Amino acid sequence: MSGQLEKWLVRRLLDSVGGPPVAIELWSGERVHVLPQGSEPIAVVQLKDRRALFELMQKPEKSFGELFTEGRLNVEGDLVATLEAIDVAIQKAIRESGPVARLMRKAMEKRPRVNSLAGSQENIHSHYDLGNEFYGLWLDRDYMQYTCGYYPHESVTLEEAQIAKLELVCRKLDLKPGERVVEAGSGWGGLARYMARHYGASVRSYNISKEQVAYARERAEREGLGNLVEYVEDDYRNISGSYDIFVSVGMLEHVGLANYPTLGSVIDRCLKDRGRGFVHSIGRNVSRPMNEWIESYIFPGAYPPTLKEMMDIFEPFEFVIMDVENLRSHYARTLTHWLDRFERNVDRVREMFDDSFVQAWRLYLSGSISAFTQGQLQLFQVLFQRQGADILPITRDRMLMAPAPAAGG
Amino acid sequence: MSGQLEKWLVRRLLDSVGGPPVAIELWSGERVHVLPQGSEPIAVVQLKDRRALFELMQKPEKSFGELFTEGRLNVEGDLVATLEAIDVAIQKAIRESGPVARLMRKAMEKRPRVNSLAGSQENIHSHYDLGNEFYGLWLDRDYMQYTCGYYPHESVTLEEAQIAKLELVCRKLDLKPGERVVEAGSGWGGLARYMARHYGASVRSYNISKEQVAYARERAEREGLGNLVEYVEDDYRNISGSYDIFVSVGMLEHVGLANYPTLGSVIDRCLKDRGRGFVHSIGRNVSRPMNEWIESYIFPGAYPPTLKEMMDIFEPFEFVIMDVENLRSHYARTLTHWLDRFERNVDRVREMFDDSFVQAWRLYLSGSISAFTQGQLQLFQVLFQRQGADILPITRDRMLMAPAPAAGG
Repeated sequence: MSGQLEKWLVRRLLDSVGGPPVAIELWSGERVHVLPQGSEPIAVVQLKDRRALFELMQKPEKSFGELFTEGRLNVEGDLVATLEAIDVAIQKAIRESGPVARLMRKAMEKRPRVNSLAGSQENIHSHYDLGNEFYGLWLDRDYMQYTCGYYPHESVTLEEAQIAKLELVCRKLDLKPGERVVEAGSGWGGLARYMARHYGASVRSYNISKEQVAYARERAEREGLGNLVEYVEDDYRNISGSYDIFVSVGMLEHVGLANYPTLGSVIDRCLKDRGRGFVHSIGRNVSRPMNEWIESYIFPGAYPPTLKEMMDIFEPFEFVIMDVENLRSHYARTLTHWLDRFERNVDRVREMFDDSFVQAWRLYLSGSISAFTQGQLQLFQVLFQRQGADILPITRDRMLMAPAPAAGG
Repeated sequence: MSGQLEKWLVRRLLDSVGGPPVAIELWSGERVHVLPQGSEPIAVVQLKDRRALFELMQKPEKSFGELFTEGRLNVEGDLVATLEAIDVAIQKAIRESGPVARLMRKAMEKRPRVNSLAGSQENIHSHYDLGNEFYGLWLDRDYMQYTCGYYPHESVTLEEAQIAKLELVCRKLDLKPGERVVEAGSGWGGLARYMARHYGASVRSYNISKEQVAYARERAEREGLGNLVEYVEDDYRNISGSYDIFVSVGMLEHVGLANYPTLGSVIDRCLKDRGRGFVHSIGRNVSRPMNEWIESYIFPGAYPPTLKEMMDIFEPFEFVIMDVENLRSHYARTLTHWLDRFERNVDRVREMFDDSFVQAWRLYLSGSISAFTQGQLQLFQVLFQRQGADILPITRDRMLMAPAPAAGG
């Protein structure tokens, strides 16, 4: 049995996140919401014990994930829709709060950990070495892309969207046969294989995840691309050689703000005089650390930068930004496909790990869909070249991945 | 007769700007260059008196323009090619200099003046109120665009390029019939008329140049667009009302870094919840003041920002950057067309003003061609929307201004 105090606390909690259209069900079975009379909640968040409420009050962002993972908080209703509704309410509350409240919020947010060479290795292992079989259950079959796909049409499949993304990257770079490419962060080696197979490029790709490198090497050999692609198990800071193109898809999130000038100097060192480059990364419209729960349990050391922050890679070395595209809606679709496949294989995932892993991964994918849909997270593709190197075509015609629509106006 | 000292000084001067492939001819008729034996200079820079050399040594950037304007420095050879060759040499020298030399160079560069409301008016008048007839001699006939055009093909005329630019802006914004647009900086009113005529939009456009506003109003009335466009003679800081779209083409250069948060707050104030916006501006890849001569004589108070600096408009108000395109090569082409028309009408310009005006304008247009070709100046088009406003299409298909090329790869 829960008393008046608990119900008052729940109302305060709901008010503090902008009064989202959800009810909270206490361990006693009593339900509380702060909606106007006549409105129905779209979901019920069940708290299984009294402590859960107090944890949630103290650190809402982090505790929600912890409690959900431990099975002490359950969502009755569609998880993605519930998280989106909560996000919308919070964003509205922030917008309507004064500048002082916003500053306090900022001050409360802690910064992510520093990425030293050794620390980076540890951070990356915990996520990317979960096993190739696990990722194979829900990523695209052909290229194992654990990054945002590109959807030229509504009806595109995950496999098609990832191939379209790889093709888009090559077209943006205006990649030519025989060119030498260096890649920072290989994933499972998909982009390097695509560039070699479809463009005849020769690619050297750096990655610090042992499992991914082993997979990438084996697959390139099997597909007869071993003479064109080389996977190096090493940190991006140790890149050597001289290249026409620098490319990095989905690594910057793990680099850390403090290392951006270093990354810039690596690009500057390895790029030829008429070289060009491309960086694809999750980002922000406002400077803010990663969600605390995700940073603690899913992506230690991760930080999505704003465009302003990203410029610390390029401006000190006089690189010229030619093109920036924000693909955040494409990431929401990609994640929706991933979540769908994850759920279809959830029994196998539970066998491989356990219940709490399933819950954690479910929340991470669902929360990310919400963040990309609501616009708190961005996906920036940045194309650049050296000052004076006028090597890229002056229009975007080459980038078009679908028939042109009828002329507007 | 000039002595050994002068010739030694000329060699030092040439060395200090990276040894460009030009000869300097002294008032005595003697020629000096620092090219290797067997190399021929592509142009001869004639100095008409001894003082010219000393002025050039003290303040090369500013004095070159002053001496050229006064007829005390003459370029025998193609002016654009000469300026490009000098730019290339200087850039190479900077690249090859150490970080200390680069820092000293930075410290020596002075900042542009502050743009108060009154100061802005003065700065703008000196340039934009030179007379509509003058600009009519060399800008495009249809829309009097004093900003970068868009060249979908090599063979496009200036008139076609400016119409393509206006169309590109509307397509990027996904402008719909009946939408309300506010424009900061009208020029001669061309974009507002285009949006009204071809998209049925209703546009309120702010401008502080009296002559431009008078021209824009008269022309809109004459073309029967008076019911859809309204030109307000006032500063962008005084914008009022509520709009679907904010647009500004070629005004940011005159706003001044310190006023970027103010500009952001104006956009935030006037844009509806699901609003979107567009800013088109000359920019830089590296933070650096305007060329000193241009800042002193052509564009007082002008400052081209880097992308990082531009983000101070958007990030404090949580706007989401959706698309950035760098059109610098298109500006080099636009300027080449302008210079060509200017030269064809140079006798009329001389009648309206005088010789030194002709020289100043010739140098300004030629130097700008060089800067956009060499990549010291950029042209950024930035498309943004509010966080949570998912109103823009998720692909760039609508932006394509030419038939798609054959698929790559």
